Amino acid sequence: MKKEYRIAVVGATGAVGTKMIQMLELSSLPIASVKLLASKRSAGKKLLFKNKEQIVEELVPESFENIDIALFSAGGGISKKFAPEAVKRGAVVVDNTSAFRMDKDVPLVVPEVNEAALKNHNGIIANPNCSTIQMMVALEPLRQAFGLKRVLVSTYQAVSGAGASAIQELKKQLQDMLDGLPKEELTAEILPCGGDKKHYPLAFNALPQIDVFSDQGYTYEEWKMVNETKKIMNDDSLSVSATCVRIPVLSGHSESVYVELGKDNLTVDEIKATLKDAPGLVLQDSPEEQLYPQALNSVGKKETFVGRIRQDLDVTNGFHMWVVSDNLLKGAAWNSVQIAESLHKMGLVKVN
Amino acid sequence: MKKEYRIAVVGATGAVGTKMIQMLELSSLPIASVKLLASKRSAGKKLLFKNKEQIVEELVPESFENIDIALFSAGGGISKKFAPEAVKRGAVVVDNTSAFRMDKDVPLVVPEVNEAALKNHNGIIANPNCSTIQMMVALEPLRQAFGLKRVLVSTYQAVSGAGASAIQELKKQLQDMLDGLPKEELTAEILPCGGDKKHYPLAFNALPQIDVFSDQGYTYEEWKMVNETKKIMNDDSLSVSATCVRIPVLSGHSESVYVELGKDNLTVDEIKATLKDAPGLVLQDSPEEQLYPQALNSVGKKETFVGRIRQDLDVTNGFHMWVVSDNLLKGAAWNSVQIAESLHKMGLVKVN
Repeated sequence: MKKEYRIAVVGATGAVGTKMIQMLELSSLPIASVKLLASKRSAGKKLLFKNKEQIVEELVPESFENIDIALFSAGGGISKKFAPEAVKRGAVVVDNTSAFRMDKDVPLVVPEVNEAALKNHNGIIANPNCSTIQMMVALEPLRQAFGLKRVLVSTYQAVSGAGASAIQELKKQLQDMLDGLPKEELTAEILPCGGDKKHYPLAFNALPQIDVFSDQGYTYEEWKMVNETKKIMNDDSLSVSATCVRIPVLSGHSESVYVELGKDNLTVDEIKATLKDAPGLVLQDSPEEQLYPQALNSVGKKETFVGRIRQDLDVTNGFHMWVVSDNLLKGAAWNSVQIAESLHKMGLVKVN
Repeated sequence: MKKEYRIAVVGATGAVGTKMIQMLELSSLPIASVKLLASKRSAGKKLLFKNKEQIVEELVPESFENIDIALFSAGGGISKKFAPEAVKRGAVVVDNTSAFRMDKDVPLVVPEVNEAALKNHNGIIANPNCSTIQMMVALEPLRQAFGLKRVLVSTYQAVSGAGASAIQELKKQLQDMLDGLPKEELTAEILPCGGDKKHYPLAFNALPQIDVFSDQGYTYEEWKMVNETKKIMNDDSLSVSATCVRIPVLSGHSESVYVELGKDNLTVDEIKATLKDAPGLVLQDSPEEQLYPQALNSVGKKETFVGRIRQDLDVTNGFHMWVVSDNLLKGAAWNSVQIAESLHKMGLVKVN
């Protein structure tokens, strides 16, 4: 009998959830059915899957009866409560929130980097943070070829990572400013972080805060990049520091990444040759042709783009690069679906 | 007799020129008269100086007869041609273009850092690049207190640095996108760099190119930050690398700056104490209160703002910080007027 999966999408009406549905449509995964789950407020809405109307159902524990794979992207609280319910009923969960990422029993997976970690799953697999995933795709080929000692990253992150309402907030602020509203009269209720006390306009601004502040003056988003990188690359000795910044871009995260490699006296050409055919990665690097990755061009694409590769002017094993990807796709929905594809390929989904 | 200066502003109708006029209004400099100069196209326009209407005159060599101080901001070509004409007629020139910055006979000055270099001027003083200036204001106190070994910077630069027409281009693109135009139909004729071959939309984008490309894959803007930093700090052994990026912000440059200091085992509190009362600098750093510098808040302010100060997670003498300033003011017009004030204070302007 041909194996076909019954898939549930939790948070189906959200910014990432709707992309998960699109990515499932494009996926090679054999799919028997797709069940769309969301909060009571969104239940009853209709969405298309492969041109067939699907009614969004309210998420309850029983939603996961007869589900083989459940993709979660409805916030950490929902995942903590409902992912165990899904696992209890025999589903394998791919969770896009930060709820389980640092749990030692939960694999944190970017298929291009550590697909093998899926073998040890106990029902839940975590999808890393968007800003981490794209950096991993660009750095793994260098790590494999030359070894990786140190990473410093400054991000230029899009607002869609903060959800559909944050997108609307930015658009309204921009329209207000274009209509001549003084900047002092702009309103903000969501950004930089829905769960924090103060809110600031993002229109014509750069906000050096994503998620709330944590230890040593770093934000949670910055700690995610540090801790998740070490877990995915399985290397606690790797040096990583991050500065995470939100900019007025709708979708497409950009990153200015500095790396120190384990081998000295490499040339830019050797770096480019290593990145050129790496999985999931597209090299866009030609100063003569003004070719470099751009957030706006990345929208809707599943790949990660890398360019502006330069040797540091002082440190011979240091290189700078510019890494761009659609944060809703490779950064979230596509990586989740890729994990499901890997689970299928490796025979790690049991069909109930 | 009280010394009062006859001042000329070259490029008076431009994005920086109009700010120079405003900064002269606020300046303590004793001013006898202000002559506004621009291209033939702009001649005849009327601008206010201290509520008095001034007619913009066409720039010709004779414009500088009976001028004591000439502030230039009309492009490098204009400076190369007309600055020597001004000097020949006895004026001291403060030039905001890159025309003379790396000339060894021309002081490159940020008054908070190297005011003393003005003593050796030969008629022309260069105003550094906007992105360099604000970084200098933040780093000089650390250099003085602890020594500075290495700087890595990633910039988040506003469009006003590319001139008034680039601002209009961004605004039009944003309005088009808000009105539902597909991104493929956006038009661009100026950014990332007026003088380069290809042009890309900046709306909802981040463009990792400012100025044209130069040696080793770095852009001129990046080389300016490297070379100007070494010249201003008078330290060729200082390690500096830069990644310069334009983002959809109207005014206010932000910078993610990583430094390695000459002293080990410093604390964040020691860094903050050193920066707190530094000239021209405002410390805005309180994670508990979500207080950090923001581009939008810097607009119209003459100071440079610093915050998000954190120790690197792996390198004990490494610190990260977020440096913001209005690129048209401290980055250009205000620094130029400050240089004129320093020349006055030091008795380095001869009144013809």
